[in-house]
Amino acid sequence: MSYMADAQPIRTIQWRDNRVVMIDQTKLPTELAFVEYDDYNQVADAIRNLVIRGAPAIGVAGAFGLALAALHSDAATKDLLVEDMQTAQRTLFETRPTAINLKWGLDHIMAVARRGTGVGDTRSSVLDAAKQMAEDDIRINKSMGRHGAGLFGDDTIMTHCNAGALATVAYGTALGVIRAARESGKKIRVIATETRPVQQGSRLTAFELKHDGIDVSLIPDTAVGYSMANHLVDKVIVGADRILRTGHVYNKIGTYQVATMARQHGIPFYVAAPLSTFDMESDPADVVIEQRRPSEVTGTGDRMTAPEGIGVINPAFDMTPPELVSGIITERGVVSPPYERSIRELFGRKN
Amino acid sequence: MSYMADAQPIRTIQWRDNRVVMIDQTKLPTELAFVEYDDYNQVADAIRNLVIRGAPAIGVAGAFGLALAALHSDAATKDLLVEDMQTAQRTLFETRPTAINLKWGLDHIMAVARRGTGVGDTRSSVLDAAKQMAEDDIRINKSMGRHGAGLFGDDTIMTHCNAGALATVAYGTALGVIRAARESGKKIRVIATETRPVQQGSRLTAFELKHDGIDVSLIPDTAVGYSMANHLVDKVIVGADRILRTGHVYNKIGTYQVATMARQHGIPFYVAAPLSTFDMESDPADVVIEQRRPSEVTGTGDRMTAPEGIGVINPAFDMTPPELVSGIITERGVVSPPYERSIRELFGRKN
Repeated sequence: MSYMADAQPIRTIQWRDNRVVMIDQTKLPTELAFVEYDDYNQVADAIRNLVIRGAPAIGVAGAFGLALAALHSDAATKDLLVEDMQTAQRTLFETRPTAINLKWGLDHIMAVARRGTGVGDTRSSVLDAAKQMAEDDIRINKSMGRHGAGLFGDDTIMTHCNAGALATVAYGTALGVIRAARESGKKIRVIATETRPVQQGSRLTAFELKHDGIDVSLIPDTAVGYSMANHLVDKVIVGADRILRTGHVYNKIGTYQVATMARQHGIPFYVAAPLSTFDMESDPADVVIEQRRPSEVTGTGDRMTAPEGIGVINPAFDMTPPELVSGIITERGVVSPPYERSIRELFGRKN
Repeated sequence: MSYMADAQPIRTIQWRDNRVVMIDQTKLPTELAFVEYDDYNQVADAIRNLVIRGAPAIGVAGAFGLALAALHSDAATKDLLVEDMQTAQRTLFETRPTAINLKWGLDHIMAVARRGTGVGDTRSSVLDAAKQMAEDDIRINKSMGRHGAGLFGDDTIMTHCNAGALATVAYGTALGVIRAARESGKKIRVIATETRPVQQGSRLTAFELKHDGIDVSLIPDTAVGYSMANHLVDKVIVGADRILRTGHVYNKIGTYQVATMARQHGIPFYVAAPLSTFDMESDPADVVIEQRRPSEVTGTGDRMTAPEGIGVINPAFDMTPPELVSGIITERGVVSPPYERSIRELFGRKN
């Protein structure tokens, strides 16, 4: 089966003819379909229903959502336009509470809007800022790749969930580092965890690595320990949805146990994330872990795999404590423990 | 939805009118269907395709398979009958290489056959022995329950895979202990892991506990660490497919990481298994880990969840080292570390 006849690099989200165009990730890996939206409510639904997901990608989706709100507002003054955009901001923000990039993207665009002078000027500066955010995302991912590639040799790398092109505008964070390591001549093999319940590992990571001709094997999430105990894994790299100033990493449910197993087997565990993923304000007690609907766990597609009416615990994220993290790869370089200090220093550095 | 109108206890396998009757576990949880076999090759297929699974249950299925082979053999002498049964023994044994109970069940019935005098006598003593093995399984599980129940208070217990009535003839090993704890008046809640790829946790454990009115919640395998870190789990209990004299436990893929996470959080991790699960001969290097077909991981039902042609690692079992095991519950009592000594003593004890 050929997934992308022209083998173009994957571009998850873009602005075209006053619309937001996204890959519909709920259709992958069997179908590469695109959706177009001209209403920010559609963008909010798309984020909520995982048509688009991945912390950096939903940050950009939120920004384009605000651009749509600005474009279609009939406000007569700039202040009324900002009010309309605030309504959109609330709707967009409430879709996913854990990933900090969404808040970051929305806040950034709202700051641009508040600096506008008239309605027309504000609309165009908001749209420019959203487009710039998308371009910056790719540039940042490539920079992360350059910084991270040196951590890897001819390695088999385990990754969890999808922190790839499909989690960003293009190239990816964790998978961007893998791409960069490979582009620098390393022989890289990848073991992707399935990542239940939504299967971003099998549906998305396996899809995009195969698309790029990178050697990838899929395992059920239950086989993480087996793979490490049987010396099939040299290193681990994952993305993040939020990183605190203390180095606590919030990422896809299951990350914490992958990190624990890596520590158990002396395998380095890296996190790749842009600075927009860092939350310098919150403590672990402040972070809301999104709980998702039971049907993600009780069935797959139309098939029920659990008895009806069963109780379900379905958190979207878990927290990996800093002592399990060997290093965090950012667009400004790699930081190591102790994170309280190295992350503070990171934010003082220049790009 | 009512699964069993009469709410009878689950009986996984039985002998009726010269046939083996089993619950077809591939149809659960949406349908409670029974299959009947009069040919041992059908029984071998049923074991291979997980119509019946669980170490104790497939031990009994193997025994009934040999009874069918004896019944339908046209051998004129007892020695020829034993030869026919040996052919059946090989076919049945090769279906699942890791669970030791299958070997144990087949060996036991073959020993009975070899002690027979004529064809008719051998047939009837083989059938009697297989029926007795099924009855013994229930008695042993109840005994395990009595010994294990005292380890639990009003606890939330995590279990992985299905070591329940559906993994045995009835009552269960790990879930038998849970049933016994509840029958002794404890307030028991259960967290069942989904257990990808075959989903015995959601399809079977959730089904049979709900059927018995035991409070059960389902989690994806990725949420083991989250559940423990958030203090949702007091104790863990699982079954086993093989236990070595050193206390190394072979069980469903994923058990090792559940045990590691339990240790990380100071949560007791128990294994419940009959003496027929112990392999006093082998070392870890001798144990063959069954690798199952990729399609178990790349799809669910008819739905492909991974790109076609992707590489897959799909081991059926993993090994949990003795240092992660708080205690092993058997029909002769509970053994504790150091296992090399306590398991040796166990085999010297009376029932």
